[in-house]
Amino acid sequence: MPNTIETTFHVRYAETDQMGVVHHAAYIVWLEEGRSEWMRANGTSYAQFEKDGFMLAVSEVNIRYRQAAHYDQQVTIRCWTDEVRSRQVTMCYEVIDTENDTILAEASTKHICLNVNGQVTSMPEKWRQLLGEET
Amino acid sequence: MPNTIETTFHVRYAETDQMGVVHHAAYIVWLEEGRSEWMRANGTSYAQFEKDGFMLAVSEVNIRYRQAAHYDQQVTIRCWTDEVRSRQVTMCYEVIDTENDTILAEASTKHICLNVNGQVTSMPEKWRQLLGEET
Amino acid sequence: MPNTIETTFHVRYAETDQMGVVHHAAYIVWLEEGRSEWMRANGTSYAQFEKDGFMLAVSEVNIRYRQAAHYDQQVTIRCWTDEVRSRQVTMCYEVIDTENDTILAEASTKHICLNVNGQVTSMPEKWRQLLGEET
Amino acid sequence: MPNTIETTFHVRYAETDQMGVVHHAAYIVWLEEGRSEWMRANGTSYAQFEKDGFMLAVSEVNIRYRQAAHYDQQVTIRCWTDEVRSRQVTMCYEVIDTENDTILAEASTKHICLNVNGQVTSMPEKWRQLLGEET
Repeated sequence: MPNTIETTFHVRYAETDQMGVVHHAAYIVWLEEGRSEWMRANGTSYAQFEKDGFMLAVSEVNIRYRQAAHYDQQVTIRCWTDEVRSRQVTMCYEVIDTENDTILAEASTKHICLNVNGQVTSMPEKWRQLLGEET
Repeated sequence: MPNTIETTFHVRYAETDQMGVVHHAAYIVWLEEGRSEWMRANGTSYAQFEKDGFMLAVSEVNIRYRQAAHYDQQVTIRCWTDEVRSRQVTMCYEVIDTENDTILAEASTKHICLNVNGQVTSMPEKWRQLLGEET
Repeated sequence: MPNTIETTFHVRYAETDQMGVVHHAAYIVWLEEGRSEWMRANGTSYAQFEKDGFMLAVSEVNIRYRQAAHYDQQVTIRCWTDEVRSRQVTMCYEVIDTENDTILAEASTKHICLNVNGQVTSMPEKWRQLLGEET
Repeated sequence: MPNTIETTFHVRYAETDQMGVVHHAAYIVWLEEGRSEWMRANGTSYAQFEKDGFMLAVSEVNIRYRQAAHYDQQVTIRCWTDEVRSRQVTMCYEVIDTENDTILAEASTKHICLNVNGQVTSMPEKWRQLLGEET
């Protein structure tokens, strides 16, 4: 199964700010949508992860902005899993200008697995395999 | 106890859009913060309402925008309860330019009381009294 | 040309709140995206409207929430123009659960045409025709 | 003049997500509000920076989340300038639980100075001095 998943959508007007470009916090929401699509493209969903009694809390975000994104343009979020451990996973991203394939931003996020009580716990086996843990 | 409560804060940069003014959806969040402050000023909190096992779901929002708000200016949310029934409450608002007391927007919101299962239910007596139900 | 345009997307996780459902302000952003798609489906874009030297400022939003929307589900925004005048336009909306076609929310928004100086002005003829002004 | 500036506010309900805690993207907006307050506390404003014909575009965000923040609690953003160069500046932050002074998140952001045409340019002398450039 391919590890790199893409999702494409139009930039929303509400995501712009008075600089005339997309506000930097909007990208953080886009990364999350990239993760959601990664799950869907791999036959499940993060909603299912939570139904199974687990949560993936974000513990770290690192993002570099290369070029500004603009209202109405199409952007593509390219998302893949990087390091997968029993209790945490790192995801990587490129935010792409869909039309000309240039990179608008590069990012990584780290996530810790919590149970319903908010305690750090190991991810279930099926989720670790899905995410691509090396064995 | 006064029914009209005010809360004042600076407009955040993220709340602007490429028109150079505050995006209209940001006001909806401000109204909610006006409600939160209403609760706090009356000696409790909406957090307590949820701890008591109830939720106030928004069933309707009506808002008229009079003048644009701008980054960095101070805005005041003036909030009061209007019609209070056993299962629902209407709140009213003025969004004010703090410096010159002009009205930027006028709004009302309706809320339905739900229990933890998401079913419509009567508000507890103490909350109806707090909100000002006429008896 | 059909006046009613639909756009469909997944609910984003960031759009939920601690009630476990979509926060009511997120719908306001969805309506805007419905308007953006209306423009695109009619062969132009709101970006072009601004390039032409005009802005459509939101002067009023009225929305009724019927049922809660949830993370990861698909929602469809159905958008059509209602009353079109020289200086203002009213848009109507239904927010739909894509899977079973039930209505999650109904809304209308009013917009005033401004020039680049922020003054109320008549919409250009081509835009009034596009929006469907009756003559 | 002290370089570390604090600003305190209540967590907004809209900033929570269905995990029952503050969504990680909300912190990014808080950092920005910390920067805004830094400017105000130093006798000016970022609004003035833009009026002077410059913009500070965000080129990088790095944030580590230590503990979850919750609706209605008070959080304090502690913000200071780190490295100041002619064309860029690094800001650092701690997001604090106001009540017990524990750290909820630590972050840094990098900013590049642009002119009104979006070109990288040197910051005016008065702004470099304000930000604390070592000479």
